[in-house]
Amino acid sequence: MRVDLNADVGESFGAYRLGDDAALLPYVSSANIACGFHAGDPSVMRRTLEAAAARGVAVGAHPGLPDLAGFGRRNMDLAPETVYDIVAYQIGALLGLARTVGVRLAHVKAHGALYNMAVANAVLAAAIARAVHDVDDRLIFFGLPGSPLIAEGERLGLRTASEVFSDCSYEPDGSLTPRRLPGAFVHDPEQAARRAVRMVLEHVVEARDGTTIDVRADTICVHGDGPSAASIARLLRQRLEEAGVGIRAPGAEA
Amino acid sequence: MRVDLNADVGESFGAYRLGDDAALLPYVSSANIACGFHAGDPSVMRRTLEAAAARGVAVGAHPGLPDLAGFGRRNMDLAPETVYDIVAYQIGALLGLARTVGVRLAHVKAHGALYNMAVANAVLAAAIARAVHDVDDRLIFFGLPGSPLIAEGERLGLRTASEVFSDCSYEPDGSLTPRRLPGAFVHDPEQAARRAVRMVLEHVVEARDGTTIDVRADTICVHGDGPSAASIARLLRQRLEEAGVGIRAPGAEA
Amino acid sequence: MRVDLNADVGESFGAYRLGDDAALLPYVSSANIACGFHAGDPSVMRRTLEAAAARGVAVGAHPGLPDLAGFGRRNMDLAPETVYDIVAYQIGALLGLARTVGVRLAHVKAHGALYNMAVANAVLAAAIARAVHDVDDRLIFFGLPGSPLIAEGERLGLRTASEVFSDCSYEPDGSLTPRRLPGAFVHDPEQAARRAVRMVLEHVVEARDGTTIDVRADTICVHGDGPSAASIARLLRQRLEEAGVGIRAPGAEA
Amino acid sequence: MRVDLNADVGESFGAYRLGDDAALLPYVSSANIACGFHAGDPSVMRRTLEAAAARGVAVGAHPGLPDLAGFGRRNMDLAPETVYDIVAYQIGALLGLARTVGVRLAHVKAHGALYNMAVANAVLAAAIARAVHDVDDRLIFFGLPGSPLIAEGERLGLRTASEVFSDCSYEPDGSLTPRRLPGAFVHDPEQAARRAVRMVLEHVVEARDGTTIDVRADTICVHGDGPSAASIARLLRQRLEEAGVGIRAPGAEA
Repeated sequence: MRVDLNADVGESFGAYRLGDDAALLPYVSSANIACGFHAGDPSVMRRTLEAAAARGVAVGAHPGLPDLAGFGRRNMDLAPETVYDIVAYQIGALLGLARTVGVRLAHVKAHGALYNMAVANAVLAAAIARAVHDVDDRLIFFGLPGSPLIAEGERLGLRTASEVFSDCSYEPDGSLTPRRLPGAFVHDPEQAARRAVRMVLEHVVEARDGTTIDVRADTICVHGDGPSAASIARLLRQRLEEAGVGIRAPGAEA
Repeated sequence: MRVDLNADVGESFGAYRLGDDAALLPYVSSANIACGFHAGDPSVMRRTLEAAAARGVAVGAHPGLPDLAGFGRRNMDLAPETVYDIVAYQIGALLGLARTVGVRLAHVKAHGALYNMAVANAVLAAAIARAVHDVDDRLIFFGLPGSPLIAEGERLGLRTASEVFSDCSYEPDGSLTPRRLPGAFVHDPEQAARRAVRMVLEHVVEARDGTTIDVRADTICVHGDGPSAASIARLLRQRLEEAGVGIRAPGAEA
Repeated sequence: MRVDLNADVGESFGAYRLGDDAALLPYVSSANIACGFHAGDPSVMRRTLEAAAARGVAVGAHPGLPDLAGFGRRNMDLAPETVYDIVAYQIGALLGLARTVGVRLAHVKAHGALYNMAVANAVLAAAIARAVHDVDDRLIFFGLPGSPLIAEGERLGLRTASEVFSDCSYEPDGSLTPRRLPGAFVHDPEQAARRAVRMVLEHVVEARDGTTIDVRADTICVHGDGPSAASIARLLRQRLEEAGVGIRAPGAEA
Repeated sequence: MRVDLNADVGESFGAYRLGDDAALLPYVSSANIACGFHAGDPSVMRRTLEAAAARGVAVGAHPGLPDLAGFGRRNMDLAPETVYDIVAYQIGALLGLARTVGVRLAHVKAHGALYNMAVANAVLAAAIARAVHDVDDRLIFFGLPGSPLIAEGERLGLRTASEVFSDCSYEPDGSLTPRRLPGAFVHDPEQAARRAVRMVLEHVVEARDGTTIDVRADTICVHGDGPSAASIARLLRQRLEEAGVGIRAPGAEA
């Protein structure tokens, strides 16, 4: 058994530091690198690519909305064509820098409101998936299982990776519990790690109402914000490995 | 004999239109496409790539300073490393969109103040040339003949294209006459066209003081701004072709 | 009888020109000046203030969403507190420049998607109105009659100006006909002018279904885009004056 | 005897935190608030105004270059007219938010490269001083003693405040030791505090070569970055107060 651990990195901008990538990278197998729209800048991107490459972590593009002030977390009513263009632009920008570092882009994961809007809107999901496909059809496309992101990616023949959130609560229908509801997050790292192990080994997770639901876990999202992000990631990785689960990027050789 | 005619295009941004690319593209062989820093946006870039491809015009990146408000024409004191990163980013971004359109990037020409600063500063020229080289060493690197842009490009093994300005005056040392001096521009299109023909066929141009200086003309810059830009470009192309000069991008097959 | 004619101006940015303010200003009594978020920059703002002042046109702030690439026309999911802050910021910015020119700000009209979102959302309308009130409670607040913009402005004790669109179709409930529907616009300038005269003198307009509805017309929006914007504005003003309607800003002395 | 302690605050942006204003504000008497160009955003500005007002700290505008990616620290070749406009815009923007909070702007201090360019360029200094004067001629204008900032401010009749840096080394001519030279900074907080006390009480400072030079110290710049910024500020204030120096903003009543 194997699973990928992915984290958002490279979210600093100019003089602004965000997250502690150096502490987090040792524990993940895939790094989603911000591409300058919601976060990141060209120099941060290059340095993040170098840091991930030095750790043997697979790198992918993490395109977001053109909203630095809102960190890409505020919905914007963009035309699907615009979404296609900004995603292709951002993947390309990271690709340019990846070439200077000598690494290959492995995957794409949409960021924040772009991801969430696409989970609820197949037209946007298709625009993102098409952009990924048209820039490089070997890129692995990350998305919420059961969402249009995965469906549209597969429809285009992209390899996809279904992403789970071990520290988030699920509804009985497989969607994530809305953030505003009580119990939306699993705050105990040990409990989150147990949920992760179960999702990988048994392909199920306990929903908020106690029912057990099926889930596909190709990659587990590790949140990089918060002061103890790295120690939580380390614990998660340790518990998975203790359970016999290998930590590997989806595209990595067995 | 052959020469390239290049023009800056794709400089619109959002609701803002700049230049008349559709009118200009029929007369040039290379299009320098703005990459979103000094001008252009992802959708403008894609549409410009499509328009150039439809015309058989070779496309290249036209990276500029991160200064949309100043159209990349105001000097900024950027570290060479930063210049390297923003150039790689911008070439990559255009590369991403070029893949969606199915065209290959042929060249890179720095824009505005970035170009001018590099003409006067070999360290910056080297940073730009290295970024071009490291993203794709088959890209043809445009620059002022005799400037560090060409020297640094050649030092890295890049194919270069020496660029002349038929509507600009030259000093006896081969540099361009500063804009603030009288006679800095050749306003008569017929005279500019005669200068272009002579630069291509005889490899010389008459300097401001009447002396004749050697010049290498691989590509002629066609200014796209101004209401009569397209008709000037058409005249220039016509006069060159009448003189037996073929108009072809540097990388185009003979 | 009197009415105000207002137009959006100062929408150029850096090297980008938009609209022909010089041609339009002679025909309007109120100028809504973009404040640098959706359009405009500090130098454009100052020059626009100077041009309006030279014509005796009342000047107001035209705050928009922080989305230059989308010209402030794309809905963004901003928190009401954020809306309050960006509106206060933009009014203040114009106020700073107005002081350097020696003119007084007379009014505020929200732009594009900010205006439209507030028409449909009383919480956003209240955030905008509060920002206007808290920066300067003598500012006249423009908005769609019957909308939360007017209601929230009045609740705070602001003087309001109900805005009509003589070249737009109305629904029987007093709302504007959605742009996507046939007949959403009145393309004949003479017909639009007749509608304007009737709105001012008879306080009614014919809705799309032929019924006559009441409407309050303190100010008429003159669209500044399109090649014949100025000539349409001139015709509108001429027809109003021929009908005995004086053209004056809401805050202007009789 | 009295002196002002000023610090740059409100430099966060969107999701990005910079500095620890809450820890610093108790020890300073003047807060220079970033205005959204090099740092800060409308919401950060309002919250910073509220925090400063709650502490009784005088608030001023800290306008910078339009270069968020470079934090306003990279020289940009702006026309003096552009500098005038961006300074008036930024002061106005803060003024708008200050009105919503109910506080009066007390001063203006240019930021980073804008400050440094103006120290070396009287035309830029005059552009800044004119903008301050034209927006509100009661604003106190901070600048390096002996520099064009102070000279141009005084020429316009502005009240000025000469600013010293107790943790920076001075050259015999009164200029600051360039950052790249050894000994440019005074790293020991106690030594810096002793220098501050001497500058205030004796109007002299020991230059890098050991000579004693005259200096006017109306306000002392307290650096807000670095993990121990607040404790250094506390020590500085304590040592000044122990020496009988009152800490008060320049415009504060005695």
